[in-house]
Amino acid sequence: MKKITKYVIKNSLKRIFLYRACLVRLKMMGVEKVFSYTLANETGVTSDQVRKDFSEFGIRGNKRGGYEIDELLGKMEKIFHRNKDHNIVLIGMGNLGLALSKYQRFVQRNMNIVATFDIDPFKQKIRSDIPVYSPDRMKEIIDRFRVRIAIIAVPEVSAQEVCDDLVRLGIKGIINFAPQLLKAPPEVIVNNVNLCDELESVIYYVHKQIKADGQKNIELLYRDMKY
Amino acid sequence: MKKITKYVIKNSLKRIFLYRACLVRLKMMGVEKVFSYTLANETGVTSDQVRKDFSEFGIRGNKRGGYEIDELLGKMEKIFHRNKDHNIVLIGMGNLGLALSKYQRFVQRNMNIVATFDIDPFKQKIRSDIPVYSPDRMKEIIDRFRVRIAIIAVPEVSAQEVCDDLVRLGIKGIINFAPQLLKAPPEVIVNNVNLCDELESVIYYVHKQIKADGQKNIELLYRDMKY
Repeated sequence: MKKITKYVIKNSLKRIFLYRACLVRLKMMGVEKVFSYTLANETGVTSDQVRKDFSEFGIRGNKRGGYEIDELLGKMEKIFHRNKDHNIVLIGMGNLGLALSKYQRFVQRNMNIVATFDIDPFKQKIRSDIPVYSPDRMKEIIDRFRVRIAIIAVPEVSAQEVCDDLVRLGIKGIINFAPQLLKAPPEVIVNNVNLCDELESVIYYVHKQIKADGQKNIELLYRDMKY
Repeated sequence: MKKITKYVIKNSLKRIFLYRACLVRLKMMGVEKVFSYTLANETGVTSDQVRKDFSEFGIRGNKRGGYEIDELLGKMEKIFHRNKDHNIVLIGMGNLGLALSKYQRFVQRNMNIVATFDIDPFKQKIRSDIPVYSPDRMKEIIDRFRVRIAIIAVPEVSAQEVCDDLVRLGIKGIINFAPQLLKAPPEVIVNNVNLCDELESVIYYVHKQIKADGQKNIELLYRDMKY
């Protein structure tokens, strides 16, 4: 049965990403070892929370000696399958699709966009490192590169159709940039990234903040936000 | 005191965005009234949750008669200050910045990027609807348009410096696309959107799903995810 996918990144996973970013920064500063309270302090959570999150993702440390940063980062790479290559297709080569196809960070993290697709024949002629194909060739490419992950960057009106096609062709995970709720079978992961909502939420909190006079109210507002 | 901002969008706010997307779709289908259980069913939460979220954001309905969709959408527009124009500046006109500056959806929702900034003199000559200025002119533009919200799309290495400048110039809310944890005073809202993390989380769940044999495990995985 198809349903609107209710997928969101778990808060513990978000925190793991945050710890990782801290570890990378500490490593650059020449630090070799951290304690859970260092990470807690840097990220604004409790030491217990750090240890709990680590244990949820199967990361164990020496309570007294702390964690070796290199070892921690290595474990995280394994958890996120960074040591493997991930072949990805991108559908929709509008402004956003084009920018995403050129996003160097993906490649640096072994996330390879092997092909992009667009219905516009003119875009199929763009000279770029990554080929732009007609959607007719989606099955062939997905099969050839054993692709399981796709990025949707098409306009809102075509997003559901593209999603259905991708699911039929064996795609198991989708990151969707179209501002449209996609229906997909429960075994397919859909992560909706809605840029307007992200910006609108900043505006919402800024207005709330401006209304709240004085630091006290601001602190209350912060405590109110679940991490 | 500057600290790494721990801001994330509250789950209740995320759900409000989800309800809104549903309402827009229902309206397009010609529906005029909804009950909380309609929205609950469409978004996969309980009716109680819908009512609780509405009450948190000051939206009241008639328990028996349901909600008028138009009225609900109107209330939501007020909550998100959609009826007002929001002037925004964008810093960094690389591929992503350029795509964001052309993102039509922002304009449709009264979020106006009034100016963009880039240190590259070549980019300052780009002919586009939105001017590209040298960062020297940031103070002048922010003051003239009374800008309080900024989008950071610069490379990682310059993100913190740009953030510091923006805060000094009176910016109260930032959406940051650089994969860098920004330090900002507690009264400034920073919403970090890390595209790599978003994609990596999809890969993580897809691998977890592939490992989990059978529907039963998959359902457990889903329940495990906090919405």
